[in-house]
Amino acid sequence: MTRTIVASATKEITIGFDQKFCVIGERINPTGRKKLAAEMQAGNFDTVKADALAQVTAGATMLDVNAGVTAVNPNETEPPLLVKTLEMVQELVDVPLSIDSSVTAAIEAGLKVAKGRPLVNSVTGEEEKLEAILPLIKKYDVPVVAISNDESGISEDPDIRFDVAKKIVERAADFGIKALDVVVDPLVMPIGAMGTAGKQVFALVRRLREELGVNTTCGLSNISFGLPHRHGINAAFIPMCIASGMTSAIMNPCRPQEMEMVHAANVLSGNDQDCTEWIMTYKDKVAVQGTMPSTMAGGQGNTEVKPAGAGRRRGGRAARTGS
Amino acid sequence: MTRTIVASATKEITIGFDQKFCVIGERINPTGRKKLAAEMQAGNFDTVKADALAQVTAGATMLDVNAGVTAVNPNETEPPLLVKTLEMVQELVDVPLSIDSSVTAAIEAGLKVAKGRPLVNSVTGEEEKLEAILPLIKKYDVPVVAISNDESGISEDPDIRFDVAKKIVERAADFGIKALDVVVDPLVMPIGAMGTAGKQVFALVRRLREELGVNTTCGLSNISFGLPHRHGINAAFIPMCIASGMTSAIMNPCRPQEMEMVHAANVLSGNDQDCTEWIMTYKDKVAVQGTMPSTMAGGQGNTEVKPAGAGRRRGGRAARTGS
Repeated sequence: MTRTIVASATKEITIGFDQKFCVIGERINPTGRKKLAAEMQAGNFDTVKADALAQVTAGATMLDVNAGVTAVNPNETEPPLLVKTLEMVQELVDVPLSIDSSVTAAIEAGLKVAKGRPLVNSVTGEEEKLEAILPLIKKYDVPVVAISNDESGISEDPDIRFDVAKKIVERAADFGIKALDVVVDPLVMPIGAMGTAGKQVFALVRRLREELGVNTTCGLSNISFGLPHRHGINAAFIPMCIASGMTSAIMNPCRPQEMEMVHAANVLSGNDQDCTEWIMTYKDKVAVQGTMPSTMAGGQGNTEVKPAGAGRRRGGRAARTGS
Repeated sequence: MTRTIVASATKEITIGFDQKFCVIGERINPTGRKKLAAEMQAGNFDTVKADALAQVTAGATMLDVNAGVTAVNPNETEPPLLVKTLEMVQELVDVPLSIDSSVTAAIEAGLKVAKGRPLVNSVTGEEEKLEAILPLIKKYDVPVVAISNDESGISEDPDIRFDVAKKIVERAADFGIKALDVVVDPLVMPIGAMGTAGKQVFALVRRLREELGVNTTCGLSNISFGLPHRHGINAAFIPMCIASGMTSAIMNPCRPQEMEMVHAANVLSGNDQDCTEWIMTYKDKVAVQGTMPSTMAGGQGNTEVKPAGAGRRRGGRAARTGS
């Protein structure tokens, strides 16, 4: 059984097929957040702190931390800023962190200050990346996110993306890094642009799990890019990914609809023992038992009808499943 | 490709792996609905009519019709009442119907009046049932729901439930009934009572599809029986079943949360061409683009953050997936 261990100074988390889905909070990332980028450059970490607390309160299993505020000379500016951000966050919350940077020097600087066993986000199949990142993964004995693209970019062919992932896992092995410390991101395309994007991810996650035995992750909300009511698409994508074997995702835990689907999928995949977490989280939404007048159909979110078939005279189904 | 054809007088629907999920409205069923049972016995079909219209308006693909108002002498009372109910419903709405009864005489009476190509719900692996129902299925050339239980009841062992389904499909073949006209219900246990209930269904549906090539269905809400906030569990169960290959379910279409997950899963499984249905249904919920102040985290359902990774400098991912 593949178990990827991540840890903060005080808290150890296992990412695995028989574990609750690992929600990696995406919010601490100035990419596309001009205001946050400006704050961080000015040394103001109020938003970073608020995002850290809000995400952990919302149920994030761990937090991704990115300090890429500028494309100008990032090799000089990003390492100290990422270090400062990581120190700020790990003082404030006790969840494990994901060190997110495309700057190798920033990742190493982060690895020196991050407590416990952080996740490194990320390496790709690009030769330069493999040679730069994998030695750090081995040296600091940490797990890494492996993104399935290489010099040729991101292939629209899932078989090629699988081969890139396989190459990364094999190269990691050459460095003495176990497959259980490589968390593969099969890459999620926007379904609005590519109708097969969902099926590609489900098939890839299944193959990655069955053939490479690795844990998987993804930038979840990419799937709904450009569509109306994105939260609905994201909310359905989560249980479908989990049913396909995905074990973590980089997502926004401050979305009640998406987090509700994470909790429910944990129950349905058998990883919420005795439904304890579900009951604790949603017990105040206890449903009214009994029948519902048809005139109220759809009008009362918490009004229950008898479960389909529970009372139906079908092969004794009622007596057995309705209790 | 397995295609189960159902039809009303004017509308043909295909149940299949490459089709939108078939939502079989469960509401027209007096089981556990004393008020409805009393109305139907008194010849009052107001609720039946309201339920028929409400379910079709809510997006039901077809409607299940059950007239089992009493356990007292059902062989005499149920056939005429089911006939009357079916005639009432098919005059009112144009979707295909499912003739739901445990009384063979009622099913045959229903088959004589139902227009188009109705679904028969159901046969089980019980010898008496097989001998009574399968000849009718052959005679009227209609598809049938096959429930995976037999004389020994409902096994908690999914392999035994698979074997029962396999037996029914084989017996159907002996009668000259194609596997594509047998829609298997693997039986859904309450997850609150059996922690493996979800995984059992996902594995069974996959096997039924891969090994027997049949379409599948289930009494969907059984999964959440006894749990608080059942709609959340049901809502996550739908995409997980669809990701596992389930092609229909007997459910309540008058639940916006569950139906939203059906629409989203249709998009994600690639069966909502160009996301047309999704966009038409949810275009008025267009998300506000741009970043979200952390102080509003979780506070604004429709406020969007940039998709995770869409702008992240990870192997050129942004340029390729963020457009």
